[in-house]
Amino acid sequence: MTIKREVYLDYSASTPVDPRVIDAMMPYFSEVYGNSTSSHSQGRRGENAIEEARARVAQILNCQPSEIVFTSCGSESDNLAIRGAAWLASQQARPTRLITSPVEHSAVINTVLQLGSLLDATPVVVPVDRHSLVKPDRFADACRRGAALASVIYANNEVGSVNDLAELAAIARQHDVLFHTDAVQAGGQLSLNVEQLGVDMLSLSAHKFYGPKGIGVLYVKDGIELPSVLTGGGHEGGRRAGTHNTAFIVGMATALELAYSETKERLTHFRKVRDQLIDGLCSRIAGAQLTGHPADRLPSHASFVLPGVEANALLMHLDLNGIAASSGSACKTGNPEPSDVLLALGYSPEEALCGLRLSVGLQTTEADVHYALDVLVEAVGKLRRLKREIVT
Amino acid sequence: MTIKREVYLDYSASTPVDPRVIDAMMPYFSEVYGNSTSSHSQGRRGENAIEEARARVAQILNCQPSEIVFTSCGSESDNLAIRGAAWLASQQARPTRLITSPVEHSAVINTVLQLGSLLDATPVVVPVDRHSLVKPDRFADACRRGAALASVIYANNEVGSVNDLAELAAIARQHDVLFHTDAVQAGGQLSLNVEQLGVDMLSLSAHKFYGPKGIGVLYVKDGIELPSVLTGGGHEGGRRAGTHNTAFIVGMATALELAYSETKERLTHFRKVRDQLIDGLCSRIAGAQLTGHPADRLPSHASFVLPGVEANALLMHLDLNGIAASSGSACKTGNPEPSDVLLALGYSPEEALCGLRLSVGLQTTEADVHYALDVLVEAVGKLRRLKREIVT
Repeated sequence: MTIKREVYLDYSASTPVDPRVIDAMMPYFSEVYGNSTSSHSQGRRGENAIEEARARVAQILNCQPSEIVFTSCGSESDNLAIRGAAWLASQQARPTRLITSPVEHSAVINTVLQLGSLLDATPVVVPVDRHSLVKPDRFADACRRGAALASVIYANNEVGSVNDLAELAAIARQHDVLFHTDAVQAGGQLSLNVEQLGVDMLSLSAHKFYGPKGIGVLYVKDGIELPSVLTGGGHEGGRRAGTHNTAFIVGMATALELAYSETKERLTHFRKVRDQLIDGLCSRIAGAQLTGHPADRLPSHASFVLPGVEANALLMHLDLNGIAASSGSACKTGNPEPSDVLLALGYSPEEALCGLRLSVGLQTTEADVHYALDVLVEAVGKLRRLKREIVT
Repeated sequence: MTIKREVYLDYSASTPVDPRVIDAMMPYFSEVYGNSTSSHSQGRRGENAIEEARARVAQILNCQPSEIVFTSCGSESDNLAIRGAAWLASQQARPTRLITSPVEHSAVINTVLQLGSLLDATPVVVPVDRHSLVKPDRFADACRRGAALASVIYANNEVGSVNDLAELAAIARQHDVLFHTDAVQAGGQLSLNVEQLGVDMLSLSAHKFYGPKGIGVLYVKDGIELPSVLTGGGHEGGRRAGTHNTAFIVGMATALELAYSETKERLTHFRKVRDQLIDGLCSRIAGAQLTGHPADRLPSHASFVLPGVEANALLMHLDLNGIAASSGSACKTGNPEPSDVLLALGYSPEEALCGLRLSVGLQTTEADVHYALDVLVEAVGKLRRLKREIVT
């Protein structure tokens, strides 16, 4: 009998805050507490901390500090990019089409759909391949007709595949279409060099790379006069009003720096335990299929379809055994509908109910992997037997 | 000679986080770190903390937990209320007029103005009296013609006056106009009982009552189907997408509870040191005028016009002597323009350049007040002498 333990395999949903990040944030709660827009020394100390953090984030993105907009989360960054671009096009009487893919985060999809009715912006959904990657030729077809914006996810949150952003961004640029990417899952693992990627806007969220929940970034290339969709004071160069969350801004910069100064060790570790999970699961569970691209995927990310094993039942079983996993995006769990992402990839509705996402992190150990595999094998066996008994 | 000390008199701009609030938040950084929408025990622990916090906030507002929407700041709350109401009216082909006052926070004014061009919503600005209070008869005139929303500030951030919300909200209700209030400055000091106030929506921000910067609340009365302006996952009953900032949500609930369980002691203290400031300043500085209502004002808030003393020069002088003060809203400091609020109150442009806001808090001592008064008297004397020398 295996002894029950707590195993967190849902780092794609959220990560614990690194103790070094907490240390960096602490002075900004009750020592340096001035409002960053106040013109006295308490205020300036906050402002200086924010501008220093902005420069540190900009360095990792290889951009100017003025191109960094601090937001409250990745969803807000996505909203600002898409709403701003759609409204900008509408003001300039340019095409308001919004190009995206069927496997985007809900903050992209739902914003595009809402703008369809608010601004008469026409959503254009470019198909993806079996691995969730946007098809460049179909993307080029969409761009050719003009658009306010194209928004394509960097690394998919459900199946982990990594789009070739540089190729897609070049196509968009060729057709004078602004290019935004939701890089929330990529943050801390893939290159965020915006010059090399060629993107015009890029969204990040700190809690995916051991920073706090409640702080995000939108990179906005200089020259894009994005109208603000959260108006008030002139914060963030007039692009995002609201008193600065000094502590979390400093925390995010610290978390991002740690992620990229320790990339090699982190990714080596992620890949090792992730591959142990993939190999163990595919060899020990009959019919298990890895979803997403087998090679071009996030180092921390494993995702599967386990035929005949309904995800919600499996997750409940895992949870009872101390294992935190997911069927897909954290923003959708609990939803008994088949995964839209898996459907878009060509899986059947039955298969799309059987998705499993296991994502590893800094704290994941080999012992965690072994325990998780043992529990998974047992749970899948039980659920399949149960299903056969019900059917027969 | 007075020995220099650090005296913070800008609590209206922001407050230090209460150590008890920090203690309440700490477990949600690296112990309970699950995404609140995840369906495993780590996620549920976060969700439970959020729902418990929601119930605690609801209790203080005397409303249902379902009527509490967590946002990232007071500005976002204002934006959600105003943008949501304007869009709701536009969808329902009802009047899209937006009634407000000339002394609102920039998150209200600038949002109303932006919607003027985005949705053809007509801004209607109801005049205020010399104390910054909205005139009920003029407000009734505006409501009579129908509107998507009326938004009136609870306690003014620059001059501290407190509007009679119950009276204004009753007028709005009579004319079937939704009533929102920016209660950001009022939070922690005035009653937030939404039933007694009769408001439909109310904005709060935690960092004004010893909670962290980067978290806010919008109360939305049940039955108002406010469209979300930050779309994505189904968080907050579909009214505000984005991963929950669990730590700050718990922190805000704690800060709000502390403020209202300790109201009597806090307000007694605020009034005492505030009145010492007002009495000292008005008796020792010739021509000093208290701005805002002499009685119906925030207990923590003192504001003045000091004729012939340009605010920016005075603030610089105070800052050099360790005193943090403000000329008005923190979102506007550094702005060399005369205060829009003081102009709207009928002060001359010259007077409106001479505003001073001193706001006290939990840490303010009588020694702070004495020091501040001494420095102020000296600084005002110097600046007035300098001005006379330049003129002659």
